Amino acid sequence: MPETTHRVTFEPDGRTVVVPDGRTLLEAAQAGGVVLEAPCGGNGTCGGCRVEIPDAPPEPSEACRTILSAEEIRRHLRLACQVRVHRDLRVVIPDEARRRDQQILTEGAAFDVPLIPNVRKRAVHVPPPSVTDQRADADRLLDALADAGLDGLTVPATVLREVPARLRRLEFHPAAVVVGREVVDLDRPTAADACYGLAVDVGTTTLVGYLVNLVTGEVAAVASRANPQATYGDDVIARIEYTGRERGGARTLQTLVVDALNEILTEACRRAHVKPAVVYEAVVVGNTTMNHLLLRLPVAAIARAPFVAASASAHSVGARSVGLKIHKRGRLYTGPLIAGFVGADTVGVILATGLHATDGLRLAIDIGTNGEIVLGTRERLLACSTAAGPALEGARIRYGMRAATGAIDRVDIEDGRLTIRTIGDAPPVGLCGTGLIDAVAVLVAAGVIDATGRMQAAEDVPGSPAMARRVHQADGERAFRLTEADAGRDVLLTQRDVREVQLAKGAIAAGVHLLLDAYGATLQDVQEVFLAGAFGNYVRPARAQAIGLLPDVPLEKVTFVGNAAGVGARMLLVNRNLRHVAADVARGVEHVELSRRPDFQVHFADAMLFPGV
Amino acid sequence: MPETTHRVTFEPDGRTVVVPDGRTLLEAAQAGGVVLEAPCGGNGTCGGCRVEIPDAPPEPSEACRTILSAEEIRRHLRLACQVRVHRDLRVVIPDEARRRDQQILTEGAAFDVPLIPNVRKRAVHVPPPSVTDQRADADRLLDALADAGLDGLTVPATVLREVPARLRRLEFHPAAVVVGREVVDLDRPTAADACYGLAVDVGTTTLVGYLVNLVTGEVAAVASRANPQATYGDDVIARIEYTGRERGGARTLQTLVVDALNEILTEACRRAHVKPAVVYEAVVVGNTTMNHLLLRLPVAAIARAPFVAASASAHSVGARSVGLKIHKRGRLYTGPLIAGFVGADTVGVILATGLHATDGLRLAIDIGTNGEIVLGTRERLLACSTAAGPALEGARIRYGMRAATGAIDRVDIEDGRLTIRTIGDAPPVGLCGTGLIDAVAVLVAAGVIDATGRMQAAEDVPGSPAMARRVHQADGERAFRLTEADAGRDVLLTQRDVREVQLAKGAIAAGVHLLLDAYGATLQDVQEVFLAGAFGNYVRPARAQAIGLLPDVPLEKVTFVGNAAGVGARMLLVNRNLRHVAADVARGVEHVELSRRPDFQVHFADAMLFPGV
Repeated sequence: MPETTHRVTFEPDGRTVVVPDGRTLLEAAQAGGVVLEAPCGGNGTCGGCRVEIPDAPPEPSEACRTILSAEEIRRHLRLACQVRVHRDLRVVIPDEARRRDQQILTEGAAFDVPLIPNVRKRAVHVPPPSVTDQRADADRLLDALADAGLDGLTVPATVLREVPARLRRLEFHPAAVVVGREVVDLDRPTAADACYGLAVDVGTTTLVGYLVNLVTGEVAAVASRANPQATYGDDVIARIEYTGRERGGARTLQTLVVDALNEILTEACRRAHVKPAVVYEAVVVGNTTMNHLLLRLPVAAIARAPFVAASASAHSVGARSVGLKIHKRGRLYTGPLIAGFVGADTVGVILATGLHATDGLRLAIDIGTNGEIVLGTRERLLACSTAAGPALEGARIRYGMRAATGAIDRVDIEDGRLTIRTIGDAPPVGLCGTGLIDAVAVLVAAGVIDATGRMQAAEDVPGSPAMARRVHQADGERAFRLTEADAGRDVLLTQRDVREVQLAKGAIAAGVHLLLDAYGATLQDVQEVFLAGAFGNYVRPARAQAIGLLPDVPLEKVTFVGNAAGVGARMLLVNRNLRHVAADVARGVEHVELSRRPDFQVHFADAMLFPGV
Repeated sequence: MPETTHRVTFEPDGRTVVVPDGRTLLEAAQAGGVVLEAPCGGNGTCGGCRVEIPDAPPEPSEACRTILSAEEIRRHLRLACQVRVHRDLRVVIPDEARRRDQQILTEGAAFDVPLIPNVRKRAVHVPPPSVTDQRADADRLLDALADAGLDGLTVPATVLREVPARLRRLEFHPAAVVVGREVVDLDRPTAADACYGLAVDVGTTTLVGYLVNLVTGEVAAVASRANPQATYGDDVIARIEYTGRERGGARTLQTLVVDALNEILTEACRRAHVKPAVVYEAVVVGNTTMNHLLLRLPVAAIARAPFVAASASAHSVGARSVGLKIHKRGRLYTGPLIAGFVGADTVGVILATGLHATDGLRLAIDIGTNGEIVLGTRERLLACSTAAGPALEGARIRYGMRAATGAIDRVDIEDGRLTIRTIGDAPPVGLCGTGLIDAVAVLVAAGVIDATGRMQAAEDVPGSPAMARRVHQADGERAFRLTEADAGRDVLLTQRDVREVQLAKGAIAAGVHLLLDAYGATLQDVQEVFLAGAFGNYVRPARAQAIGLLPDVPLEKVTFVGNAAGVGARMLLVNRNLRHVAADVARGVEHVELSRRPDFQVHFADAMLFPGV
């Protein structure tokens, strides 16, 4: 009997997906490439995948009743992960559930490293064969390259299949492309300058790619994407669980991230007027899970104590072997890892901030979906990872969004009056990480949120009655309205949002504390604090410090380094010698496993408070 | 309109092949895996593919009339390459046109090299991960191997995909398989001794494979096959021409030889009670064309002046990438080459005879389908190749066959009476290389063949009338009957056969002469002559010298080394350090291009004579 199928149409795009009977709407969306935020991985706990079913919506499930307000249920909203398709359906995706164009931080710390790329492209004159010169084609090519200063090379068998015909077509005047120690292609001599690489920071939530001209060392274009794996869980644990639960799940996640990397490649190449076929190497830094998923290495052991990776080494593999569509024989280099939750992105942060080469004690905090912390000097480096969660990237927050048009990115109180600023000065639609920090800091300072993080009832809010009026109950919890009553659309900061911020900043602060302990130092010994991360350049340091996200050091000691992991990736792309440094750094860093520290929970609980007020 | 097809049944096997209308019988045979000798590559010039068409044979083509005798045409014999199939056909393959079980020389010179294989298999205890030991799985494995004395290794990404699960299934007690510097598999610890390699001499006419136990260094089994590419031409030039003429021809030849190598692998493994999956490396030596066809490198430039190879280097590629069915991540190492017509087989001969390490002047002659000659000392080595042709391997000879049951392998005259010996004392069916040399030497000595190689008319044969009676006209040429008149089946040595022998021995003798010239030495300076080749151990040196195949040195200076190329392959398999030696040897040998020597033709013409009589 043929399988019964139904048509699901997703508005406002109008995309129609045909799915077998019994699938969930979330699965239908995934199958059709319709991107819904589902940070919990479809468990019915995050509320990210809420959709409207205008016509005869099904009875709400228990999860729907827990997560959604009575008003939302009345408005025919349901969780897409909870609705099974048993007939043709029309579905409307609300604005806040859809991914938006994002303002992803792509500028990193400036750096200056010698240009010694792993890719070289060199036009050479090769003497044609004759009866007095019967050298094999490969030998005459390699001899000519050696004369041009490139020696110790080989030509792999796959390339050799094309060499004789190519040499003759180019009249023995090719531009040889060399990746590592291998000749990978022969191009026209006039194309000798067309030589590019792609450096990518593969984050749990965000992917940023830099197209780099390997002749000049300059960035030719930047492109970024949200990590589409987020549909299957917003942190690495959720994604690892998905791969354990779903047959072929790891392959699904791998395909998703590679597709996004190819989009980044295409977009960056289009902007720079460069063909992807002249991109000969990609360098990827990512956390251990992102690294393993991309390389199709097993991830199960990362999520279970004692949290071990399959491999901590750097790898150089054929780019096409993982689906990356640079030059057909281009290579993918993935940076070395430190531990199960401290990856090549952290190695990149160390390289970019120079922590491995510094004399004075320095601290680097990289705030992504996990918060990685590194402390030390050239003599000794400690690192740990904290499950900060993606709250500061806008996920798990009721009106959270990434830093895109309409996102509230500043909140202030002037003369007892709350003011907001939005990106692009557009009507407010949500709250990005920077705005979230501002909002919490301001509300803590105003006494709307107390030291334990509890939002006060309207009647207990001190000062201006205008502030008190913004507090009300929404969908079963207390919430603070950030927008004006007549703004057309409410953007709320909920009690649960505040708790997410507390978890994030508490985890990071506890990590810093324990790392200092393990090092045997105090905050006063730290000469400089680097703050890295997707929002690093935009956040206001005083506000980050006010809520306890940034340690209590003089602000002049704080340096924002933006996407330092991405900078590290670019350094590894343009200077192959740094790959040895990276390997040494990764091996040398002492990993501090916070879960083993009996005092972690104490510090964590303590650090969740807002003590400064 | 569907394609018209016909059924062709090949007797005596009864194999039936369905072919499109208009194909030749030779193509039908090839399509059906029915092996016919076609040394000329189907050009209608060698007569190797003669078949009988019992029922209503087609009119003989011009080529058939030229090659076949009137008697043969009357007996319904035709050349399979000349007959196009336009109806269902029944075809009988005559005994002499079918490949026979062959007695291929597999024993080589004894050798004694230290056992330092490129493959190691080592059982190790790997400490399981714990909260105090969070090393990545690959690192803990590599550390354990380093403790066991194997350091500097890596685990490629493809292997890493299996490592975590495999380590746990083996309870962290694996036998790690290391090829080169890479861990390629984890086996059961009890299988640590199951570690094999395959060394193969890939000749133009003959393939010989040695299955070697890499723990003991001993040969576990030997297997051989005729090179099935011979169907497409019996020398390398004919095969290169085929690849130029036929789209996909190179792939056809590659598949044929790999299929035969896999048969050799299977047979040797079956005999040694070993699984092909524990064969981790194959070493192949072959001439430049065999090497390039196997590796799928372009061969066109080898056949045209100035005769250059695509690559002269040794290569190590994934065995599966060329179709070789050893362990799925096993490697294929192909030895380095010297020139377009002097390949890794000659490097193998040099290694096996120790020419590269000798103080006195030594000469090595490797008689295969090409005759390669090497002359020199540790200071200087010269090499050349001569197109000796496959006559001495039994091809291009009217009743030629390889050394198999029923082949005449000795011919003598006792008391004026001709006597023959056959392999297995079976009724004579043909003439193998050794018998051919004997026959020609005996007939030259008896005056049946004169100094120019011309066979005398019966009335001009001196001495015994019994000898004279054996000379008669057969199919348009003079021929000598080697068998008794009542033997049931005639085996003839024809005038054309004698010419083939003259060409072969003339080419080799001229090559030796010119190599001595180029070195600035004479035959008297040569301290030892190594004779290598498929028949080397069986031929009688005095006879080889009598016809001028072996240079005129005292017989005590002659050493038969059998399949020295195969011995060289085994040496490279069991001692990876010799691969560096081989590379140095291949680079260091001076190649003498005989076609450039204006005096070659003079020497060649001179050397074709039988001057000793």
